[in-house]
Amino acid sequence: MQKDITVVPSIMCADLCNLERSVQEIENAGFDTLHIDVIDGHFSPSMPLGIDTIKQLRQVTDMNFDVHIMADKNELFIEEMIAAGAQQITFHLETSRHVDRLINLIKKSNIKVGVALNPATSLTALDYVLDQCDTVLLMLINPGFATDKNEKQVTYALKKVKELHSLLQEKGLTTNIEVDGRVSLETIPQLVNAGADTLVAGSTSLFMKGNSLEENKQKLEKGISKGLNGGVFYDELLR
Amino acid sequence: MQKDITVVPSIMCADLCNLERSVQEIENAGFDTLHIDVIDGHFSPSMPLGIDTIKQLRQVTDMNFDVHIMADKNELFIEEMIAAGAQQITFHLETSRHVDRLINLIKKSNIKVGVALNPATSLTALDYVLDQCDTVLLMLINPGFATDKNEKQVTYALKKVKELHSLLQEKGLTTNIEVDGRVSLETIPQLVNAGADTLVAGSTSLFMKGNSLEENKQKLEKGISKGLNGGVFYDELLR
Amino acid sequence: MQKDITVVPSIMCADLCNLERSVQEIENAGFDTLHIDVIDGHFSPSMPLGIDTIKQLRQVTDMNFDVHIMADKNELFIEEMIAAGAQQITFHLETSRHVDRLINLIKKSNIKVGVALNPATSLTALDYVLDQCDTVLLMLINPGFATDKNEKQVTYALKKVKELHSLLQEKGLTTNIEVDGRVSLETIPQLVNAGADTLVAGSTSLFMKGNSLEENKQKLEKGISKGLNGGVFYDELLR
Amino acid sequence: MQKDITVVPSIMCADLCNLERSVQEIENAGFDTLHIDVIDGHFSPSMPLGIDTIKQLRQVTDMNFDVHIMADKNELFIEEMIAAGAQQITFHLETSRHVDRLINLIKKSNIKVGVALNPATSLTALDYVLDQCDTVLLMLINPGFATDKNEKQVTYALKKVKELHSLLQEKGLTTNIEVDGRVSLETIPQLVNAGADTLVAGSTSLFMKGNSLEENKQKLEKGISKGLNGGVFYDELLR
Amino acid sequence: MQKDITVVPSIMCADLCNLERSVQEIENAGFDTLHIDVIDGHFSPSMPLGIDTIKQLRQVTDMNFDVHIMADKNELFIEEMIAAGAQQITFHLETSRHVDRLINLIKKSNIKVGVALNPATSLTALDYVLDQCDTVLLMLINPGFATDKNEKQVTYALKKVKELHSLLQEKGLTTNIEVDGRVSLETIPQLVNAGADTLVAGSTSLFMKGNSLEENKQKLEKGISKGLNGGVFYDELLR
Amino acid sequence: MQKDITVVPSIMCADLCNLERSVQEIENAGFDTLHIDVIDGHFSPSMPLGIDTIKQLRQVTDMNFDVHIMADKNELFIEEMIAAGAQQITFHLETSRHVDRLINLIKKSNIKVGVALNPATSLTALDYVLDQCDTVLLMLINPGFATDKNEKQVTYALKKVKELHSLLQEKGLTTNIEVDGRVSLETIPQLVNAGADTLVAGSTSLFMKGNSLEENKQKLEKGISKGLNGGVFYDELLR
Repeated sequence: MQKDITVVPSIMCADLCNLERSVQEIENAGFDTLHIDVIDGHFSPSMPLGIDTIKQLRQVTDMNFDVHIMADKNELFIEEMIAAGAQQITFHLETSRHVDRLINLIKKSNIKVGVALNPATSLTALDYVLDQCDTVLLMLINPGFATDKNEKQVTYALKKVKELHSLLQEKGLTTNIEVDGRVSLETIPQLVNAGADTLVAGSTSLFMKGNSLEENKQKLEKGISKGLNGGVFYDELLR
Repeated sequence: MQKDITVVPSIMCADLCNLERSVQEIENAGFDTLHIDVIDGHFSPSMPLGIDTIKQLRQVTDMNFDVHIMADKNELFIEEMIAAGAQQITFHLETSRHVDRLINLIKKSNIKVGVALNPATSLTALDYVLDQCDTVLLMLINPGFATDKNEKQVTYALKKVKELHSLLQEKGLTTNIEVDGRVSLETIPQLVNAGADTLVAGSTSLFMKGNSLEENKQKLEKGISKGLNGGVFYDELLR
Repeated sequence: MQKDITVVPSIMCADLCNLERSVQEIENAGFDTLHIDVIDGHFSPSMPLGIDTIKQLRQVTDMNFDVHIMADKNELFIEEMIAAGAQQITFHLETSRHVDRLINLIKKSNIKVGVALNPATSLTALDYVLDQCDTVLLMLINPGFATDKNEKQVTYALKKVKELHSLLQEKGLTTNIEVDGRVSLETIPQLVNAGADTLVAGSTSLFMKGNSLEENKQKLEKGISKGLNGGVFYDELLR
Repeated sequence: MQKDITVVPSIMCADLCNLERSVQEIENAGFDTLHIDVIDGHFSPSMPLGIDTIKQLRQVTDMNFDVHIMADKNELFIEEMIAAGAQQITFHLETSRHVDRLINLIKKSNIKVGVALNPATSLTALDYVLDQCDTVLLMLINPGFATDKNEKQVTYALKKVKELHSLLQEKGLTTNIEVDGRVSLETIPQLVNAGADTLVAGSTSLFMKGNSLEENKQKLEKGISKGLNGGVFYDELLR
Repeated sequence: MQKDITVVPSIMCADLCNLERSVQEIENAGFDTLHIDVIDGHFSPSMPLGIDTIKQLRQVTDMNFDVHIMADKNELFIEEMIAAGAQQITFHLETSRHVDRLINLIKKSNIKVGVALNPATSLTALDYVLDQCDTVLLMLINPGFATDKNEKQVTYALKKVKELHSLLQEKGLTTNIEVDGRVSLETIPQLVNAGADTLVAGSTSLFMKGNSLEENKQKLEKGISKGLNGGVFYDELLR
Repeated sequence: MQKDITVVPSIMCADLCNLERSVQEIENAGFDTLHIDVIDGHFSPSMPLGIDTIKQLRQVTDMNFDVHIMADKNELFIEEMIAAGAQQITFHLETSRHVDRLINLIKKSNIKVGVALNPATSLTALDYVLDQCDTVLLMLINPGFATDKNEKQVTYALKKVKELHSLLQEKGLTTNIEVDGRVSLETIPQLVNAGADTLVAGSTSLFMKGNSLEENKQKLEKGISKGLNGGVFYDELLR
């Protein structure tokens, strides 16, 4: 029996001037969770979406909100995202001093907790955090630079996913591995095979230009299936 | 002959999940400029709208963008708002070190320049700035706290507008006085009479619940007319 | 009829290991208000007293707490001092962005509000703040350096007190002028004559070594009396 | 032959308005070291005790001062605590850039050095620090939140103590393991058995309400004894 | 009898790889003071010169060092410049919290004190500082951007010099007015006529390409002479 | 066949007032690379050299610039050092958020990339960085304190070099190990034997007083030779 792979479409690829309709289309295509990036311009020089937009969106859709906070003020944004009705809140360990407290802050609102790591951050950052979390989000590009065309998926993406996967198995944990950043039709089989559970889908997969959402979804699912069936020997690709 | 008073509806009061339609309605009601608040969560604990939303909005409307930046990183946000196609960019003096440079950065893109002052900030901050600017925006509530119901217009609002107006007359300047923060149907006559040229219209005027946009607009215009005709003896209201 | 001059003994001069007894002695000497400095080590490299100490002190004395916050995090410390049961809370304008909001935060707890100015800060900082406040505290030494023996009262102390006093008279305000920093038996007559209403009393007046509290108090009152009766022609002392 | 377990009562539980008497009682109960928390309101939103209080306390007691700095300005506070006459100074690695320099700063004053880790911080932070230190302090709650009732000892407390203990044995080091945060009568046997050498004793052990200091001390010692004799099979409690 | 105008050549225009020889040439041309900019990359994105270079320079020339600190850490750089043997140290009010303390720090080393203002900063910042200082340095371009060709002298340069000059006369002070930023052969007569006492000479005057140092010096002196003799009616040039 | 050890003389030891001549002497002595420290006064309280000095130096020498940035604003200084024509740029992981992005920024200018670690920083920081880099620079004293006489090479210097060397061998990488900080004639044999590839040479080796550059160079080479031939049994020296 195969495990389920979840695809979470990024709201960044929606039509931001017609969010209600655009999100409805995504929901109609069979997705139940939206990936929502919250960036404050300080963590990275980017601020895609506002809090008030997210709060209003909550009124018009029942989709799950998978919020990814990239900010220097975690406590503020976590509290706002709890108020906004998120189903999962992920924050970066690189900007967090009282990690344990932030995890508890989210948990006691009965919201799932994720922690995110920048590409270059060591997995040792997870030593005492891993079994408190529902999700570890691995950034595969530098976070907050998604609109920079030169930004490519880091070459060690598969290696890091695989090492996190091994670590979880070793510890007997079922923590969810979420991957974010140029998760493309080309790399999905390998990422899935390496252990990724949740794929943040953006402009290089579900929202690839030239195809309908439905067409891209089918390709994406084919890629996932390929990955799950081991059709990719990604080990050879790793140094 | 009377001067013109400009009313700029705040995008914060639009339907953020259906921005295109909502902004179209505002435009249809006869307004040509949108007031857009850009806050980064650091200047104030608030982040209403994202940069990407503003950029997409630029594609679907020809309204002028009157952008009000409330942020610690003025240079970043000014550059983004130039890229977004704003017609006027206003930033706060309280967070700016190289004021003159920021003014020039905006000017050389042929965009109008505004500087904003927090309620408690002295007008002396404008000593060498005033004649470089198209607009001075006076915040009449603490900026970034518009959604806090307890936040009321400061008691010295009229006094400050009047003092700025006198200062401009004394210097022979025609700089625009923009007022922002609980600019309501009740206070508009007084604010206009005191010298305000541009009114940021939000939930206490143009978007008052219970009435249509058109109805509120008429009340608002009546208030402006009253103010222009001196029907309000605001001096008596000042301490 | 003469106005009342209030003397507020500084808790810094109390016996910090026997606060209950020490404060009792101060109260027994006829004082009803304690001046309490709250410094965070960031505003100045000093952290005299802790919040928990202040909260426990509230349990053992009924004296008024006149709290002077010198900190980068005004909101945190104001909230803590409200919780601690202060009667007046003063914060520095130099570290405050949303001044009006902090004033309201204090006021709505029915606590008196003061704003403090560093020696070199212009009175223009008070332009729109003055009539919101119960007290303006003028620092006459660099705040947070009271234990530095080289730190002397600034030469323009009297000038600044006098100019603030004139400003208040001109505006018809009765705001309290509080002076803090090497307020000594020598300078008290002049400070009082210049317009000071409240004197923070420390090691150069009430707690001068060699005399009892009672003896120093008498000298201090004599100095005040001298100042009130114009026995000092401080104008000659001003440049 | 068994190793000695040291219990260090937290000054936070003393009577802060009668410190001299309160500390005397602690000393009379047979303790020779006080645990003193120095927090600056920036590391955590808390500032329990002031520097001047600590300096005056040094004049009235000969107890050892085991100072735990939780601050953003380590150098300032370390220098102040050296001046205050501390016997051991511990600072957090999470806020330290020039760790080695701070260690040397303490050492050259012939004061013992400790480094502290937040609950979620990996032990890899100690890789090149461990053999320079006399003590590693493991925070078992989020530091600076001791007065928050919802704050509970982290579930991985024993695991972390045990892993540090193994690490020390592996390296042949005798570095002292100090544990801080809800070290209670219930958890003491397990913590001691896991390898803790020094217990910071607060409101859940030595200062538990309803009993005298002496009664609590006896319970505490019984718990330690139980831990040393292996009466607790904490391994079963670990995941 | 005319007052003396001092010209201080900027070290930024010297040959930084042959400083000893280059500074010798400047000295031989009859100048006795060097203007030295110290910028830390934080105040402005620029760091022209290092502290160690300045210290070594002190060993090979007897010229006076007129140091202009543009930095976020005034205390550090002031202490370093005292150690480096400066004759005058100027720091910016915009970055200074304890202004009075910094002034005293410089003064007690028997070094002249200057305070600097950014172009847009109000002269009210000087209210209680002016008579403590030997020099007020008015920046006429945005400080730290001298190498940016687009950076031009602010249009209100003369106005600000004149207003400062009036202020000094009104107060009966002889404080030195130093002007810095595109002080060119064209503007020198006007600046001198407006009240400038010290001219920082750089690439638009003393170091203008195409002429020798001596030739430029003569032109510069001619301009000064013109300014002193009122040959320029700068009032007409002011708005 | 033995590997090559590179010695990079530190520009800090050159004659900063006669850089052209001084660097020429270094080049004539047979060195092809200069080590250039860029410190901003914030990372450490030191600012040895300016950017403009480095840029001018580029015009007068063809030596390679091995730039070591110790700063809080990596992006600014990396961009400036690219503009200055550096051949290798090294930055500290302790101050870098978007490590991967900074590495790419350097790489796409065809400049070699180094990352630097403070003495106490764990090698786990390199987990996903190592194979992106040409060089890992290990600081063996606290960075930025080279002029402090009390600053000694950390006792675990050899241990850290050896562990990094093992790590590289284990991963099959040929990344360059550069060591910096009191790299002296005494420790060079051991450091080389432990695996160091590049030695930053300063006042304790190449620039030791009393000898000529040539004499010191010969001693230095003898030490390297000794280290390469295993004449030092440094393992005994390690705890």
